[in-house]
Amino acid sequence: MFDSANLDHRIDKTAFQREERKLREALLHAQYDLKENGTFPVVILIAGVEGAGKGETVNLLNEWMDPRHIQTHAFPELSDEERDRPLMWRYWRALPPKGTIGIFFGAWHTVPIVLRVQGSISKRELGDYIGDIQRLEKMLTDEGVMLVKFWFHLSKDQQKKRLKALEKDPKTAWRVTDMEWKYFKLYDDFIKVCEPFLRETSTGDAPWIVVPGMDSRYRSLTVGRHLLTAMRARLDAKPVKAAAQRGQPLLPPADNLNVLRALKLDQDLTRKDYERELDKWQGRLNLLTRDKRYKRLSVIAAFEGNDAAGKGGAIRRVTGALDARLYQNVSVAAPTQEERAQPYLWRFWRHVPRRGRVTIFDRTWYGRVLVERVEKFCSEADWMRAYSEINDFEQQLTDHNVVLVKFWLAISKEEQYKRFKAREQVSFKRFKITAEDWRNRKKWDDYEVAVSEMVDRTSTATAPWTLVEANNKYYARIKVLRTMVAAIEQGLKWVGEKTGQR
Amino acid sequence: MFDSANLDHRIDKTAFQREERKLREALLHAQYDLKENGTFPVVILIAGVEGAGKGETVNLLNEWMDPRHIQTHAFPELSDEERDRPLMWRYWRALPPKGTIGIFFGAWHTVPIVLRVQGSISKRELGDYIGDIQRLEKMLTDEGVMLVKFWFHLSKDQQKKRLKALEKDPKTAWRVTDMEWKYFKLYDDFIKVCEPFLRETSTGDAPWIVVPGMDSRYRSLTVGRHLLTAMRARLDAKPVKAAAQRGQPLLPPADNLNVLRALKLDQDLTRKDYERELDKWQGRLNLLTRDKRYKRLSVIAAFEGNDAAGKGGAIRRVTGALDARLYQNVSVAAPTQEERAQPYLWRFWRHVPRRGRVTIFDRTWYGRVLVERVEKFCSEADWMRAYSEINDFEQQLTDHNVVLVKFWLAISKEEQYKRFKAREQVSFKRFKITAEDWRNRKKWDDYEVAVSEMVDRTSTATAPWTLVEANNKYYARIKVLRTMVAAIEQGLKWVGEKTGQR
Repeated sequence: MFDSANLDHRIDKTAFQREERKLREALLHAQYDLKENGTFPVVILIAGVEGAGKGETVNLLNEWMDPRHIQTHAFPELSDEERDRPLMWRYWRALPPKGTIGIFFGAWHTVPIVLRVQGSISKRELGDYIGDIQRLEKMLTDEGVMLVKFWFHLSKDQQKKRLKALEKDPKTAWRVTDMEWKYFKLYDDFIKVCEPFLRETSTGDAPWIVVPGMDSRYRSLTVGRHLLTAMRARLDAKPVKAAAQRGQPLLPPADNLNVLRALKLDQDLTRKDYERELDKWQGRLNLLTRDKRYKRLSVIAAFEGNDAAGKGGAIRRVTGALDARLYQNVSVAAPTQEERAQPYLWRFWRHVPRRGRVTIFDRTWYGRVLVERVEKFCSEADWMRAYSEINDFEQQLTDHNVVLVKFWLAISKEEQYKRFKAREQVSFKRFKITAEDWRNRKKWDDYEVAVSEMVDRTSTATAPWTLVEANNKYYARIKVLRTMVAAIEQGLKWVGEKTGQR
Repeated sequence: MFDSANLDHRIDKTAFQREERKLREALLHAQYDLKENGTFPVVILIAGVEGAGKGETVNLLNEWMDPRHIQTHAFPELSDEERDRPLMWRYWRALPPKGTIGIFFGAWHTVPIVLRVQGSISKRELGDYIGDIQRLEKMLTDEGVMLVKFWFHLSKDQQKKRLKALEKDPKTAWRVTDMEWKYFKLYDDFIKVCEPFLRETSTGDAPWIVVPGMDSRYRSLTVGRHLLTAMRARLDAKPVKAAAQRGQPLLPPADNLNVLRALKLDQDLTRKDYERELDKWQGRLNLLTRDKRYKRLSVIAAFEGNDAAGKGGAIRRVTGALDARLYQNVSVAAPTQEERAQPYLWRFWRHVPRRGRVTIFDRTWYGRVLVERVEKFCSEADWMRAYSEINDFEQQLTDHNVVLVKFWLAISKEEQYKRFKAREQVSFKRFKITAEDWRNRKKWDDYEVAVSEMVDRTSTATAPWTLVEANNKYYARIKVLRTMVAAIEQGLKWVGEKTGQR
């Protein structure tokens, strides 16, 4: 992996200056085209050994191109707002919007490498991290992010020379502390960890580019050329009519049975019993959120369901049990301009709650495999890959002590008709029923297929779907409350027992 | 102030239910109209004594209206990301976008009241806080925010009764801790502070509504009616052709002299001397950002100037001296959709750096009194009030240990012509010169007036403007670096000496 990088690459000053002029001009053009094009962002990962010219390169890229459309992010110690959320949250919030360049100075690869070199995690745990990284990067590139990953390398001798040179120059001496020399002593261990790490996280869409760091001119040209070539290839690519179909079409069950049809939608609960039960379960839910251990948890409640199935009513019975200071409602509507400039899941990541809080989503990230699938707002490939992207997202949440409850509120087609008609009568509910609702209703069967499939593919042990029989809205609301209470009780037990956590 | 609220207001159940039905419907309609209208947000402040039904009211508002377009924010302990910035940052980030409702459960009024009741600040310091609040709220309402402020009141006897009742009910007993009883003992002191506070922060645009909290039905109707009336009045107001001119037109100096014309734009500095000086000042700047005390400071460098005056080049000489992990470039272009849905300064507040960092603005919040004034993108009233809003903004920054340096890079009209022409020759600079630049040039004199006025009105002791003679770009860059070095040195001295801080 580092064989070629260990060689003594050099470029002389004249040759460098001649090429730099052209390169700089071409990069600036590419950056400008990127902005004009506006369909994808560029994320440049900067990684590698100390003293190999990472900082210098970042400064140079800012000098060569227009720094107004570059954001450089370093990721030092976690802030408390970051610690309260899954590790990846800090990278999501730093992602550059389409048409711009983000330079990540160290990113998701840093933590696992450092932990492994220190011996704090096992080889197997490192493997888990690598799996996470592979899936994250695949998702990003699938979403159109151009990911350019530079690994700055020095041989052991070179690193020693560089550190000594930095130490000698009064302008750079501050960069070499005991820490750097401590890391230098770990050089061999470091390489032993990084070599396979690089191999396993290098993919066709996002390969690692190993940059020999010793000669600043060679290093700079290597980075500049690679970046330029990658950007130009993408910018100049002729639009393809349609990507070749690689996915396997999904078929519904061979009989007429599915998880929705198996539900007994009409359930009994009288208004009187409902009121007693409501009191009881709201009281319990309220108590749970005041448990001392609750500060180490957070809750995300995701509501999906047929139109007019009673999501709003159920949500209000949940919020009615909570201190208003505790929860946030997120109503998922059309994405904003800033959201459209980001990968799909970005607009959900931004609402992930801090510990001790509750976030309630009225419609969710499942839009991708429901409305976007049925209405063909995205390609089949996009919603097909969404199942595993969503599972990854939810895994990160539940790994981070988020109690995730997901509800599908189901009503029958007849019940929906009655409710639509009734809503048209009540003036203050009239805005809740639009022509679009009637249109969606015509696609009842398509939605049924999509929902069944969604449940099959995303109901997991840590984040199961709860299907709620909702023809009787009293019954539905109580089932929602009961389910949340059970899930939070379970969560409190976990955090009570949990000792460590990834 | 509380006389009427101390009376025994009550509404019976039948009357309440009759009105609630109508009120609820009307509020929902108003909320829906607000969303359709989309030109202003509603911020509801919830304040007052413990046990007066604040939480219940917030829940009720969420129940009456559509919670999907309501965001409730509480402001408990500061996070470290908030502590690193001026106090108001946390409120700015919570502001609801236009067309939606934000409920602030305690806000900017809480801290000063609590501090004063505890005796931690003097009456005079409370007065400073009140001044800040008055200016903040004036700015928000001037920017179109509808600010509805509810103060929930209980007489001393009533509060005692309420706390006892809450304590007795197992469902609410958790709300009454020793803390609540401790505060209850301070009731008289609390009222003594709040009474004048409410008076002084009540304005025509944003009056406090005192809500008697004892009877839940009376309380709910009071809040609902006020909110409805306020929203309807605004939503149903007929558009006025133009607001009556209240401001006094500003006149340029009676002679031909202004701060720009007084500048000697041509300065001497040879390339050779420049390179030596550049090395020296970049080195010093670099050293300063590595001073231990620097962690308690942050720097905002604001760059404005004539087109082609060399802002980009000067910025790159600054960033060239800094560790890339330390700084963020913010290039101010057209506001995004999310930014347009907020008060003007929101898009600058969101980029205020954490301590220990540097943020460099290429074009700034001064756009309001420069391009927006000259091009008439905003009304005269808007840019006239912007001077004091900007001074307030900057005061908050400098009060919070932000070293704020502001540069106007000035070139002569002839020099600009030469540079425009030269840019058209160099292919990789061609994108820097557009038809718009030539158009702006025609308004040279208007800009000169606007700039002079801006400097006069916003150059303050803690955030002075530095006018940079920039016909010689070498000289300009060195002056920028020298100024930053001097300002940061001064800042490090402050934080070294500073003991307390507001």
